[in-house]
Amino acid sequence: MFGTMLETPLLVSRILDHAAERHSGSTVTGFVGDMVPRTSRFDVIAARAAATAHALTDLGVSEGDVVAVLSGSRPEVIESMFAIPSMGAAVLSLNVFRSRSFLLAALRDNDVSVLLVDPELLPRALDVIGDLEHAPHVVVFDDEVHGDTTALPGDAQGGQLHALEALLDGRPTTFPWPAVDERTAAALAYTSGTTGLSKAVAFTHRSIWLHSMQMCMAESAALRSGDSVLTTVPMHHVLSWGLPYAAFMTGASIITARPRPGQAMHSGRELAELLATFRPNKVATTPASLQRLLRHLENHPQPLGHLGEVLVGGSPVPEALFDAFVTRHGVTIMQAYGLTESSPIATFARADPHSSATHRRAQILGQGRFPAGVDARIVESGRVLPNDGWSVGELQLRGPWVTARYLGDDSTDRFVDGWLRTGDMATISPRGYLDVVDRVDDIIASGGELISSVELEHAVLRDDRVADAAVIGVPDERWGNRPMVLVHLKPGATATARALWDSLEGHVDLWKRPDHWAFVDDIPRTSVGKYDKRAIRSLHAEGAYRVTTISPGSAT
Amino acid sequence: MFGTMLETPLLVSRILDHAAERHSGSTVTGFVGDMVPRTSRFDVIAARAAATAHALTDLGVSEGDVVAVLSGSRPEVIESMFAIPSMGAAVLSLNVFRSRSFLLAALRDNDVSVLLVDPELLPRALDVIGDLEHAPHVVVFDDEVHGDTTALPGDAQGGQLHALEALLDGRPTTFPWPAVDERTAAALAYTSGTTGLSKAVAFTHRSIWLHSMQMCMAESAALRSGDSVLTTVPMHHVLSWGLPYAAFMTGASIITARPRPGQAMHSGRELAELLATFRPNKVATTPASLQRLLRHLENHPQPLGHLGEVLVGGSPVPEALFDAFVTRHGVTIMQAYGLTESSPIATFARADPHSSATHRRAQILGQGRFPAGVDARIVESGRVLPNDGWSVGELQLRGPWVTARYLGDDSTDRFVDGWLRTGDMATISPRGYLDVVDRVDDIIASGGELISSVELEHAVLRDDRVADAAVIGVPDERWGNRPMVLVHLKPGATATARALWDSLEGHVDLWKRPDHWAFVDDIPRTSVGKYDKRAIRSLHAEGAYRVTTISPGSAT
Repeated sequence: MFGTMLETPLLVSRILDHAAERHSGSTVTGFVGDMVPRTSRFDVIAARAAATAHALTDLGVSEGDVVAVLSGSRPEVIESMFAIPSMGAAVLSLNVFRSRSFLLAALRDNDVSVLLVDPELLPRALDVIGDLEHAPHVVVFDDEVHGDTTALPGDAQGGQLHALEALLDGRPTTFPWPAVDERTAAALAYTSGTTGLSKAVAFTHRSIWLHSMQMCMAESAALRSGDSVLTTVPMHHVLSWGLPYAAFMTGASIITARPRPGQAMHSGRELAELLATFRPNKVATTPASLQRLLRHLENHPQPLGHLGEVLVGGSPVPEALFDAFVTRHGVTIMQAYGLTESSPIATFARADPHSSATHRRAQILGQGRFPAGVDARIVESGRVLPNDGWSVGELQLRGPWVTARYLGDDSTDRFVDGWLRTGDMATISPRGYLDVVDRVDDIIASGGELISSVELEHAVLRDDRVADAAVIGVPDERWGNRPMVLVHLKPGATATARALWDSLEGHVDLWKRPDHWAFVDDIPRTSVGKYDKRAIRSLHAEGAYRVTTISPGSAT
Repeated sequence: MFGTMLETPLLVSRILDHAAERHSGSTVTGFVGDMVPRTSRFDVIAARAAATAHALTDLGVSEGDVVAVLSGSRPEVIESMFAIPSMGAAVLSLNVFRSRSFLLAALRDNDVSVLLVDPELLPRALDVIGDLEHAPHVVVFDDEVHGDTTALPGDAQGGQLHALEALLDGRPTTFPWPAVDERTAAALAYTSGTTGLSKAVAFTHRSIWLHSMQMCMAESAALRSGDSVLTTVPMHHVLSWGLPYAAFMTGASIITARPRPGQAMHSGRELAELLATFRPNKVATTPASLQRLLRHLENHPQPLGHLGEVLVGGSPVPEALFDAFVTRHGVTIMQAYGLTESSPIATFARADPHSSATHRRAQILGQGRFPAGVDARIVESGRVLPNDGWSVGELQLRGPWVTARYLGDDSTDRFVDGWLRTGDMATISPRGYLDVVDRVDDIIASGGELISSVELEHAVLRDDRVADAAVIGVPDERWGNRPMVLVHLKPGATATARALWDSLEGHVDLWKRPDHWAFVDDIPRTSVGKYDKRAIRSLHAEGAYRVTTISPGSAT
């Protein structure tokens, strides 16, 4: 027997209408040009999204099409994130730091017919488009098309170059959003490709709704009206973790920051300036950004009393970093875990009030608890292990905001019986708390035992002389593999490998400590701020690092 | 183009599994016998729900069936609220204070094949069942069936009488919950029938999920792990506002209180004792219960520092009551608005931080803001009025947890173009805040102007001598209708009608003040604690009240 409730689909357009009507005064702050802030109210965003939809319709966009965006954190990106799904099309936010061949494939594979572009990135866009058989329409976030670019290069049949503001001029500020099926693709995202080729997933209107509701739940990110949320996570990185949709659902204002042009990450000083200028009560960022901020604050203290909670994801937060923010700055860090494939948020680290103090500390130092909707299990050699807090295996997920497949890719090695294989080695506690031990590809098998590269990195980072540290496994005749650590010392600090090795006393068992040490000025990171261990392994194989090898008892 | 997200239904069984696994230590406290508390952990509730499903299967219950519950607030009621929907059947919690004919019709119309009964209410159940052609199985919340009741009266073909604990004995504590369609009916609820015949709605698994997520959102009831929520709202009243499902979704412990047997409401003293015993940080209750509590606290003060927020619904909260709790007891009252037809929660009153202090006060004194998912409009004579904060008309709602029809009733006068007519006269502000002026049936049309009976009640209640006050319209030759007020004075207080009339100075315009005053010892209320104005009007028509009539300038 069916119930009597209204069968109304959960659509992105309904989030937009709700925000425009009831949270009209909340704002989005983006940045244009060389870090010039620009603030828009939700009702203005909604009106411009409707006008954008009219313009895109005239350019031939219809339901089921894919429209791509290549931009820094301009407010127009948020407009397009609402306009395009609300029309029944899908938005694809591209990462400008990805390779030319990746961008080309993304445009080609998705039959992108319109590309929205930041004026600064127009040369890059035109360069890529030159290789397409059919050029898309290119719409620049600007008043007019500048320079010698009014015709698209090398293409007679394809699209043209347009200025967004000229296209929007005089358009209606409402649009008859279609009542599409809630399972329709609303937004596409590519995995970062850390462990191989990038693959795309397509979030649905339904998954965006459920994921957004989750982010507003008190037990999760607890977004609410009146919040001012600074995010350093770019829109091309899982839509800035879906924050814009959640913010519009509840009336939270957002400041979507971007690094200076050409930079992949914010410097500590830039982050400190953003905090001082906008005084957000919440921040969404990565451990790498927090490390930079912490180092900057050491010599340039500033009051952070405005900060309620800092939401951190992307990789596990080192204990030393966590404690430094709590004890030196009174700032609470809340970890979250997820992947592109899980929309991305799959856990939030709030302690369970029913647990002991020791357990509560472990709960917030780990990646957090799974909410209703996300099923999780630990699997090793095809066997499901108990959620006992110490059985390590691969984490597998399923749920209404977890992908069931990749777009246009029927290879099944990442899915097992309807579960997503995350590629993360982890434990789950009896109360549903996740602790990620390492990536499956990064964990070090040494003499039949497993060593977590993440655990070693966090331990090395405890030393005050160390600014950054990454660990990989390197082949070893006797043990199979042994850990090697890259260390980036703080400016002016000096330390020998032996001294750092000794400082692990009391924190890391002797047999787990890194045998190989290399001091470097910079540690390779991916475009989303994670250690690029594939690059580190390649560089090491090419002999790029000067390595000191230590064995217990030696005096190296 | 469909997205790639897993198409997994939102099912009540998934909330139960989540709660049992990840919030096993959270608890439900119910009451058995003469107010004896009994506490169960979520994992125990889940195990017993599975056993209950096995027992019900053996009694012939299958997908699509309706199983009814007639009980006080015992923990077994929560078990059945999860077991029955999770099996694919629908649970119907009946109000024992409803008439015999209502109960009979509810059992008959829904082909109820099993009735779960509180031992105290067994005589009442057997009495009603005696009139059914086919008696259902009756399962008593007990170890064994006591007394001379092992065979059901007057029925040869129908069900038998069972003791729940005997049925559960030795059953498995897991159940293979079916993957039903999320639009399947999970729970039935009857409207209170204040304005006519009771009608039933059927909540779906999907609507329960979305409503529960909403109740956990920071902007709404913000339920979370570690909360201890005392609810005085019985399960038969829209499933205690859906609180159990939301609590299991997030790990909030609940104390589901009941009045003493035979009483429809808690006394102030009982509420004070519940607060002192359980020290909840949240409470869900009605204005009528709060009035009683406030009166009790006047002479029996007790510390209420444990109380974070009090969630109040059912009818608008008088300003005097609101302020008394804030100023005398430091307790924040958060209003919510809803109907059986809206699951029920359709608004929550949290102030908009972007508004002025004056507006913020109006926002929390009103019924609150609509969340994403609930569309609302104000309609007068078929015309949609603007949401300007002062245009009064009937409130209409639609959304995924708002009903689209009544069960087995195709009469359409309560639905217009897919919108539910609430029967409430209200305004909506530009920021989406609701202010309920009155029920359509209770507003007083006087000389072409509308007078809100609710506004008058709240104004009369400002007077310290007044314990309770209800206003109805009575026919008037000159003006069509004029307000009459029933006043219940506090013990020991004395006041003339004239004195109370005078005390409205500065709060109510002269022309709106009640002409007719009657002092009474008790004001009729419905079984859910609202003023029963139909009963008051009947009693007045029968001459039951001694009425003093006042006109401005007279000295009565």
